[in-house]
Amino acid sequence: MVYVTRKVHFNAAHRLINPNKSDEWNEKTYGKCNYPNWHGHNYVLEVTVCGMPDKDTGYVIDLGVLKNILKERILDKCDHRNLNLDVDFLKGVIPSTENLVIHFYEQIKDEIQKHASEGSFLYAVKLYETERNFAEYRADKI
Amino acid sequence: MVYVTRKVHFNAAHRLINPNKSDEWNEKTYGKCNYPNWHGHNYVLEVTVCGMPDKDTGYVIDLGVLKNILKERILDKCDHRNLNLDVDFLKGVIPSTENLVIHFYEQIKDEIQKHASEGSFLYAVKLYETERNFAEYRADKI
Amino acid sequence: MVYVTRKVHFNAAHRLINPNKSDEWNEKTYGKCNYPNWHGHNYVLEVTVCGMPDKDTGYVIDLGVLKNILKERILDKCDHRNLNLDVDFLKGVIPSTENLVIHFYEQIKDEIQKHASEGSFLYAVKLYETERNFAEYRADKI
Amino acid sequence: MVYVTRKVHFNAAHRLINPNKSDEWNEKTYGKCNYPNWHGHNYVLEVTVCGMPDKDTGYVIDLGVLKNILKERILDKCDHRNLNLDVDFLKGVIPSTENLVIHFYEQIKDEIQKHASEGSFLYAVKLYETERNFAEYRADKI
Amino acid sequence: MVYVTRKVHFNAAHRLINPNKSDEWNEKTYGKCNYPNWHGHNYVLEVTVCGMPDKDTGYVIDLGVLKNILKERILDKCDHRNLNLDVDFLKGVIPSTENLVIHFYEQIKDEIQKHASEGSFLYAVKLYETERNFAEYRADKI
Amino acid sequence: MVYVTRKVHFNAAHRLINPNKSDEWNEKTYGKCNYPNWHGHNYVLEVTVCGMPDKDTGYVIDLGVLKNILKERILDKCDHRNLNLDVDFLKGVIPSTENLVIHFYEQIKDEIQKHASEGSFLYAVKLYETERNFAEYRADKI
Repeated sequence: MVYVTRKVHFNAAHRLINPNKSDEWNEKTYGKCNYPNWHGHNYVLEVTVCGMPDKDTGYVIDLGVLKNILKERILDKCDHRNLNLDVDFLKGVIPSTENLVIHFYEQIKDEIQKHASEGSFLYAVKLYETERNFAEYRADKI
Repeated sequence: MVYVTRKVHFNAAHRLINPNKSDEWNEKTYGKCNYPNWHGHNYVLEVTVCGMPDKDTGYVIDLGVLKNILKERILDKCDHRNLNLDVDFLKGVIPSTENLVIHFYEQIKDEIQKHASEGSFLYAVKLYETERNFAEYRADKI
Repeated sequence: MVYVTRKVHFNAAHRLINPNKSDEWNEKTYGKCNYPNWHGHNYVLEVTVCGMPDKDTGYVIDLGVLKNILKERILDKCDHRNLNLDVDFLKGVIPSTENLVIHFYEQIKDEIQKHASEGSFLYAVKLYETERNFAEYRADKI
Repeated sequence: MVYVTRKVHFNAAHRLINPNKSDEWNEKTYGKCNYPNWHGHNYVLEVTVCGMPDKDTGYVIDLGVLKNILKERILDKCDHRNLNLDVDFLKGVIPSTENLVIHFYEQIKDEIQKHASEGSFLYAVKLYETERNFAEYRADKI
Repeated sequence: MVYVTRKVHFNAAHRLINPNKSDEWNEKTYGKCNYPNWHGHNYVLEVTVCGMPDKDTGYVIDLGVLKNILKERILDKCDHRNLNLDVDFLKGVIPSTENLVIHFYEQIKDEIQKHASEGSFLYAVKLYETERNFAEYRADKI
Repeated sequence: MVYVTRKVHFNAAHRLINPNKSDEWNEKTYGKCNYPNWHGHNYVLEVTVCGMPDKDTGYVIDLGVLKNILKERILDKCDHRNLNLDVDFLKGVIPSTENLVIHFYEQIKDEIQKHASEGSFLYAVKLYETERNFAEYRADKI
């Protein structure tokens, strides 16, 4: 199987807070990531589709098409935005990197499958919060 | 002359806004960077000291000492903070990368000169807002 | 299991074209990648061998030996070359990143197995066409 | 003074050849870079404007405007193109990295000066042919 | 499943030598890596924990806690040290990258499991000896 | 003027110690960098030559020639070596990054001038000890 990846980036603000918990719990659990006036990141997003190349095109998926899906479904909603306040599909989600990759995966998997070669599927969504901290969500299938 | 550099990083939220101008002017001038609920960056900061190495130590400046100056004077005030709201030495400053490097330079130059080898001075402060956009402020002297 | 990787690079020209299709189809399918006078890339190639370290050497495979295999079998044929015109083992192949990793895998797998520790095998071939677009071919075994 | 930089990239094919010299001279001088069927690179271009930030905007130059100038004047002409054959402003130029930065500088300097803050000017054009080989052209002024 | 990673770094000296073999064998097997007066690397270590995010925190593991485990169990023992001479848990180990990842894995797996979300476990330890040479040890489980 | 740069790398061991000072002074001044059993780095070296491109070749200097000079004069002596013990031109030098760039500059400047275009000269030697700590030595001329 071939795993083909497109890397994109966006800049966003967020803070970590569980609104069902006390201020004390939030400060203790999240430390600096809980500071009230937000902080932010240059997020780097890598999306990987798994399958075999189409005989006619040599593509598992046209990476230009994949880029457009990511733009419409994720970047246009998250770039230069506040992940706690501004993004419809993240309402009620604590924006940890772990939670973001799960919700990003759900946000794009069907659209990607429509445009990929026969038998291909969205394999992984990897998000770098910083160069040092990152999370990846992988499909169950494989 | 030898130019010795220490690279550090911090994560912060900001937005670009000139409070003396109309909303319309701000939206037109700053576009996405003016979005109301903030966005943020993984800032990378490079600070360069220029001089000749001390005969005894071989150092222009001990980079551990330089790191501590940066921590106390810049990182402890900016990391995981909102550059428009939280930082004492940036009050009233539009936090463009250009303006940040000028104010960071002023914030550290005297302290660095005290700890550098004889005749050395703070040469440059360079700040990467993203990997693609960055600004540097250089001393007049050279 | 241990996965040990060697990274190398080469520079080549290519264009995407399916000679069995019309010019119109090629332009529509490949866009800029179909431009007639070629374009090129700084390809980065990562080759991963999977197994357990040899008791005497501590190596799954000597990475110097792996580097030489890559040089002889891939780099000497592809570096500073045109992937559509110059490479024997790519004749008739549309040089998409997906197709390249499959053919690079076949080109080196036997030679690598001969030089790796007992039970080890070529696990993956990953090729970065750009920093933003890349593909990986993985062995079925695992 | 503040030096503000925008980084962009493009992919192109080229070869090094001096048409006024013999094949033998070209092969001896340029080695692999003279191979007849072209090779290519992921070029990375950094353009630096020098000046003081505008009081109203905090910008030396709006990096979005700078990006558009680079797109119109350089990227639209060079990306996915052959630097020896396809680019009007490079006709008759040996496309060494050294020569490219000089011609890129001339191609954008006036347009940049029009859009930068008062007293600002195009300071440098830096081009990475690979991560290991790069050239920079700097203005005489400073 | 989500795979969350923390990246850290340390600088160390080492040489490759099997003390049960002759000088001749060692020179032939390890080449420059066997030079008697040591050489060294800026090691980059990536540690990946696999599981599902905790409902309350959104974390598979608090990356600050993971960083502390790595500091205590690996960095404090290896940073600015000689991997052949100074590290208790590496006594008698040939410090190839392959062997280092296996021993680093054993050194941290229990402590990580104690601090990760329910059902999570240490998935992988990846070590870059250089940007071009690296090894990864992965858990059997998955 | 054009500034053309070649980047190379080597791996070496070292420690910081001034033999004319007490153990106490050395420990206090150099901290972890003074540990007795050495540590090491993946050094990255960037060498920049300044001048105008030769009319016939388009080169300030052939970067293949520059690479060979660096190999003979620096890499063959320093790679996989101990900078305190093994390198002839560093005898008696405290191997701080600052001191290394000064001595590397002297080691190559004449040979480079012989092979560069008319009027060109060695402009700068930059050495990354780590990604975060680096020093550059620049020619007086400019």
